[in-house]
Amino acid sequence: MTTTSRTKVTTCSVEYPADGLTMVGHLALPEGAGPRPAVLIGPEGPGLSDFQRRRADALAELGYVALVFDINGGRWFDDPAEMLAHVTPLLADPDRMRRIGHAALDVLRAEPRTDPDRIAAIGYGTGGAIALELGRDGVGLRGIGTVNALTTGRPGEAARIRCPVWAGVGSEDPIMPPVQREAFTAEMRAAGVDWRLVVYGGALHAFHHPTDGLTVLPGVGHHPVHARRAWRDVVGLLDEWVPVTE
Amino acid sequence: MTTTSRTKVTTCSVEYPADGLTMVGHLALPEGAGPRPAVLIGPEGPGLSDFQRRRADALAELGYVALVFDINGGRWFDDPAEMLAHVTPLLADPDRMRRIGHAALDVLRAEPRTDPDRIAAIGYGTGGAIALELGRDGVGLRGIGTVNALTTGRPGEAARIRCPVWAGVGSEDPIMPPVQREAFTAEMRAAGVDWRLVVYGGALHAFHHPTDGLTVLPGVGHHPVHARRAWRDVVGLLDEWVPVTE
Repeated sequence: MTTTSRTKVTTCSVEYPADGLTMVGHLALPEGAGPRPAVLIGPEGPGLSDFQRRRADALAELGYVALVFDINGGRWFDDPAEMLAHVTPLLADPDRMRRIGHAALDVLRAEPRTDPDRIAAIGYGTGGAIALELGRDGVGLRGIGTVNALTTGRPGEAARIRCPVWAGVGSEDPIMPPVQREAFTAEMRAAGVDWRLVVYGGALHAFHHPTDGLTVLPGVGHHPVHARRAWRDVVGLLDEWVPVTE
Repeated sequence: MTTTSRTKVTTCSVEYPADGLTMVGHLALPEGAGPRPAVLIGPEGPGLSDFQRRRADALAELGYVALVFDINGGRWFDDPAEMLAHVTPLLADPDRMRRIGHAALDVLRAEPRTDPDRIAAIGYGTGGAIALELGRDGVGLRGIGTVNALTTGRPGEAARIRCPVWAGVGSEDPIMPPVQREAFTAEMRAAGVDWRLVVYGGALHAFHHPTDGLTVLPGVGHHPVHARRAWRDVVGLLDEWVPVTE
C-alpha cells in the first residue's frame, strides 16, 4: 500500500444527466486492459474539485477504475451560503440523493473496464451521505467508506446495507458532533451492519481537504496529518474490499 | 503492507527481573544486520501467549525487532479469577505498571539490533495499559497503539505523552464501555495528544484474540474479521511511526 507504481492513467470528463442537471464527473482508468475493481467517489458539498480528481487518478494508479461523481451540475460553489442552499435540501431528501448516486453508479458500471461485481463507494461530506444512501437502497457494493459524513437514514432502511461500512470523522467537528456519531452508530448497530468508526482526535469538519484560498464555514479546517491518515485508511479499505489482483 | 516476505527470523526467550518476578519475554529479530526499528508488544492480562509470540515473529518478518513482554513472571493464567486477582491491583497502580514497562523497554533497548530512536509500543488489554503508562511517564516512543485498553491515567499526566496515540475497541465491549471511551478521549483531548480512536462495530472485549479452548470472562469474545482489521491497522500504524527503511 505504501508503494505507488507510476503507471499510465487515462482520465476524462463524463457528462450524464441527474437531478435535473447535466453532471460532469471525472473518470480515471488504470493501465492495461480488461475489467478491474472500481471505486465510486463522492465529492464534498461545494462540488467536484481537482482535489478529488487527483484522488481518482491516484486510485487508478493503484489499478482501480475510479469515478468522482458530480452533485452540482458541473458547478463549484465558492460561496458557502450558496453551497448550503443547494446541499441542505438535498441532504434532507434520501430519494434525491439515491437518484444522484444511481446515475453515477450507472456511468461507472457502463465503463467497459469496470468489473461490476467489484465496486466500492467512498465519499466525503455530501458525497459520503449519497454513498450511504446507495447502501440503504440495497445496492450491491463491496463496501462503503465515508469521511465527514455521519448521516443517518430513514428508520429501518440501514438493514438493507449489504456491505461493510467504515466512517471517519474529526473529534472536534461541530457539524458532525458526538450526538451525530452516536446516532450513526446506533443506526448501524440496530441494523446489524458490519461497521467501523474512526475518530481523528483534534480534527474539524472537512479536515481531509486543503482550505488554501477557500472561504469555509465555521467549524471547517484542514488537518494535514489526519488527512494523510484518512487517505491511507481509505486506500487500505479498498484493498480489503476490492483488492487489485490483476 | 499486504505483502509478507518470508524472511528468516530469529527468536528467543529473554528472562529479566520486574515486579518481584522473573519475567520471560519473547524476542524476535529480523533477518540482516544493523539496527532496525523496534516494537514493544504488551500482552493481555492472562499473560504471554503463542498468539502474541506469533505477532512478534510476524513483525520481525516485516523487518522489526519485536519484543513481547511479560507481566506474570512466565505464567499464563487459565483461570479468569486468578488472572483478575493479579491484574486488577496492577491496573490500579500506574507506578507498578511503569516499572514493568520500563524493565521490558530496557531489554528491547539493550538488544544490539534495536535502533533506540525508533521504538513504538503496541499493547492489548493490560499490556496496552502499560504501554500508555510509559507514554504518561514521558518515555520517548514514536507511537503508542492499544487494542482493548482504554485506560485513563492520573490527572494531568497524559500531557507528558510525546507521541501519537491510537486506540481500538469493540463497540459492544462491556469491560471498556462507551463511558470509558469518553473518559479516554477526554483525557487525550485535554492533554493535547495526537490521538485516534477506532470503534469496531459489534465486537466484544478482547475481540482480537482467539478463544478456542479458553475459559473467558463474560463480555469477552473473538471477532475474526475485526481481529484481522485491527492487526492490519496496527501494521499500518507501525509503518507510519517506525517505517522499515533498510
